[in-house]
Amino acid sequence: MPPRSLRALVFDAYGTLFDVHSVVALCEQLWPGKGAALSQLWRAKQLEYTWQRSLMRRYEDFGRITEASLRYACAALGLPVDEGRRRGLMDAYLKLSTFPEVHDALAALKASKLRLAILSNGSPAMLRPLVANAGLHGLIGTVISVAPRKIYKPAPAVYRLAAEKLRAPKTAIGFVSSNCWDACGAKSFGFRTFWINRGTAPVEELGAAPDHVIKSLDELPELLGRPVP
Amino acid sequence: MPPRSLRALVFDAYGTLFDVHSVVALCEQLWPGKGAALSQLWRAKQLEYTWQRSLMRRYEDFGRITEASLRYACAALGLPVDEGRRRGLMDAYLKLSTFPEVHDALAALKASKLRLAILSNGSPAMLRPLVANAGLHGLIGTVISVAPRKIYKPAPAVYRLAAEKLRAPKTAIGFVSSNCWDACGAKSFGFRTFWINRGTAPVEELGAAPDHVIKSLDELPELLGRPVP
Repeated sequence: MPPRSLRALVFDAYGTLFDVHSVVALCEQLWPGKGAALSQLWRAKQLEYTWQRSLMRRYEDFGRITEASLRYACAALGLPVDEGRRRGLMDAYLKLSTFPEVHDALAALKASKLRLAILSNGSPAMLRPLVANAGLHGLIGTVISVAPRKIYKPAPAVYRLAAEKLRAPKTAIGFVSSNCWDACGAKSFGFRTFWINRGTAPVEELGAAPDHVIKSLDELPELLGRPVP
Repeated sequence: MPPRSLRALVFDAYGTLFDVHSVVALCEQLWPGKGAALSQLWRAKQLEYTWQRSLMRRYEDFGRITEASLRYACAALGLPVDEGRRRGLMDAYLKLSTFPEVHDALAALKASKLRLAILSNGSPAMLRPLVANAGLHGLIGTVISVAPRKIYKPAPAVYRLAAEKLRAPKTAIGFVSSNCWDACGAKSFGFRTFWINRGTAPVEELGAAPDHVIKSLDELPELLGRPVP
């Protein structure tokens, strides 16, 4: 099915629509000189724990995983973390800015009659304030957390949940992520996939390459045969 | 069940019995100044691909995953890799040395009537030459690859395979790994677990901490109530 016949677009949240830079900046403010190392290890552990706990069949809420990975990262780097700092960093996750092009690109896509959704590892309690604070409620019709499936991306059950919630065949759904492994997981499930490669990373070698590689959401309307009038 | 009543000990292979340092050294020899970065990214991607492919239900042989992660790491770092270098690095994986204390510690444990086994992500084609080249055949009675289960650690199916092959209840089996997440996975399944912390890393925050943390295999005989006479 060519991209112009898609009926819905599903977006990943963290790193795709929402820029986690403000969390990095807060890390640097709390531990000067260590912000980059901390935020990098924190994010790496956060993802590892989603994969490892999914495989162990020990699902845990994404908020708790995010806190657990912060504890680990601080311990590994020898950085003291008290309740105030911990809460400050967790709160920053609820107020992330969107990337500069997000509002205009989503508005154009919505105007072209595409249904827009988010599919995220984030728990409902994290996603609600995130979407509200960024003013995306009018643009994103459906916000889907993986939580009901008690497993994380890239398990097919998670992408299937999105297809079910949108009541659309998977071939009519486009999936957009800046995490290449997430785009590969969605491709493996059967979505048409768009990897936003904001840097210069190569495609992940997972045997299910994304259908399209783009630099930002700006490119989507034209690529989907729905250019802004 | 106290550690002294264990009937079998199951060891992880890479990083636990076998030192991957020779692979690091070869990376440095092939790409001077880049060896550490390459081997670190290669190993990180190798693990990520085992977790992601397991979740995607796209199991792939560990040898192929190891090659795919090498391709990714070289591309990401801008390092040219030809067939000769690729084969050289893959061959190095078949001839890893054991850590210095391994032979003596395994000999003492075997003499104390414990059954010794390996449980590894490695494919049978990788494990056979590895164990033979290191001269461990006389010490390790059972070499178990995860391959028949078509899923990787830390999935419970993998640890269950070890219990089935050893025909022992899981509470009578000790599991030893230098990968903390692997020890956590084995603990979550029900083995008594020993994490070899060769560095100073904190325990992984996975909700299933290892029962024992040791610095090297040397400590095992005494800890198990089977001191060398």
